[in-house]
Amino acid sequence: MKPLSSLQQLVQALRHLPGVGPKSAQRIAWHLLQHDREGAIQLSEALSNAVSRVRHCLCCNTFTEDEICDTCRDRTRDASLLCVTETPADQVVIEQTMTFKGYYFVLMGSLSPLDGVGPKEIAFDRLIKRATDGLVKEVVLATGFSNEGEATAHYIAEMLKPRGITVTRLARGVPVGAELEYVDVGTVARAFLDRRKS
Amino acid sequence: MKPLSSLQQLVQALRHLPGVGPKSAQRIAWHLLQHDREGAIQLSEALSNAVSRVRHCLCCNTFTEDEICDTCRDRTRDASLLCVTETPADQVVIEQTMTFKGYYFVLMGSLSPLDGVGPKEIAFDRLIKRATDGLVKEVVLATGFSNEGEATAHYIAEMLKPRGITVTRLARGVPVGAELEYVDVGTVARAFLDRRKS
Repeated sequence: MKPLSSLQQLVQALRHLPGVGPKSAQRIAWHLLQHDREGAIQLSEALSNAVSRVRHCLCCNTFTEDEICDTCRDRTRDASLLCVTETPADQVVIEQTMTFKGYYFVLMGSLSPLDGVGPKEIAFDRLIKRATDGLVKEVVLATGFSNEGEATAHYIAEMLKPRGITVTRLARGVPVGAELEYVDVGTVARAFLDRRKS
Repeated sequence: MKPLSSLQQLVQALRHLPGVGPKSAQRIAWHLLQHDREGAIQLSEALSNAVSRVRHCLCCNTFTEDEICDTCRDRTRDASLLCVTETPADQVVIEQTMTFKGYYFVLMGSLSPLDGVGPKEIAFDRLIKRATDGLVKEVVLATGFSNEGEATAHYIAEMLKPRGITVTRLARGVPVGAELEYVDVGTVARAFLDRRKS
């Protein structure tokens, strides 16, 4: 069999992008080669840089290029508050509400038994360790209000409550079924202020 | 201002992909870093290889890694027939119909005055030179049946007819407004057999 050409290899590699099928991959490859080779080179370098440099914060599990991320290094925050989010995007939205001055733990996912994502696939052990450092008094569960997010929140609450930690949940101002990342900041702010005991 | 992190640079570079906005770029970046770092490396290498190796065939203008592409080097084809397509994908569909055994010229686009694409942006000069090599007797216009494809076909026909070349157009079996690449092979085969003088 003839080895794949560079173009065919590119089309195949583009399939690694979520939601890109064979036709889209071909279109993208041609677009880049015909109209944006500069962009293709930038993307190539950015991918290789990011893969080699970006890792998980040892403290909060978010993406960072350092051992500990900027937020976790910020000593002006309230160490008694820990907010748990699914993704870094959710964390960004919460920061934008200006209603929370504690630290974060980013799960990088949510429980989803149907997709084979159980507690082991998410950094639950590290969350428990982080939440029981002796300083944390309240864990605010800011996972999404989808079924997976709710299940994740429930699971975490059941794990932490026996350990004497107050566990709260964002108020149900957030529309049920919505992903936190796409909710407007005002609604998330309201939900943050109305958080309730879990 | 703080320099962009590798992650932010990746998100920005992903915007070079057609149809990818800021939110999608972030989602794609996280997906790759969280679930498919191997794929990200493959994509990075494929992009850089393709950009450095893929160029235009000197003869038919399609993408190739050689000076002259495989199709143009195929000496068993009928040198009196030249088929003009917009993209390499269109060429692939026509090859699949098994109804054409001549050579190709790939425009890599179509006339689109509203987008600033005129004859100079497309390889028209090279097409004229290729079509008037003394061997070509018939040029089959297989540009799409969108407004741009029709305009492109009309323009080429007007250029070539005074030069004594027979110019034909795919039959109107192809639905008006459709892009050739997405039409089923049987319809394209029918249209190829029914091509008419332009």
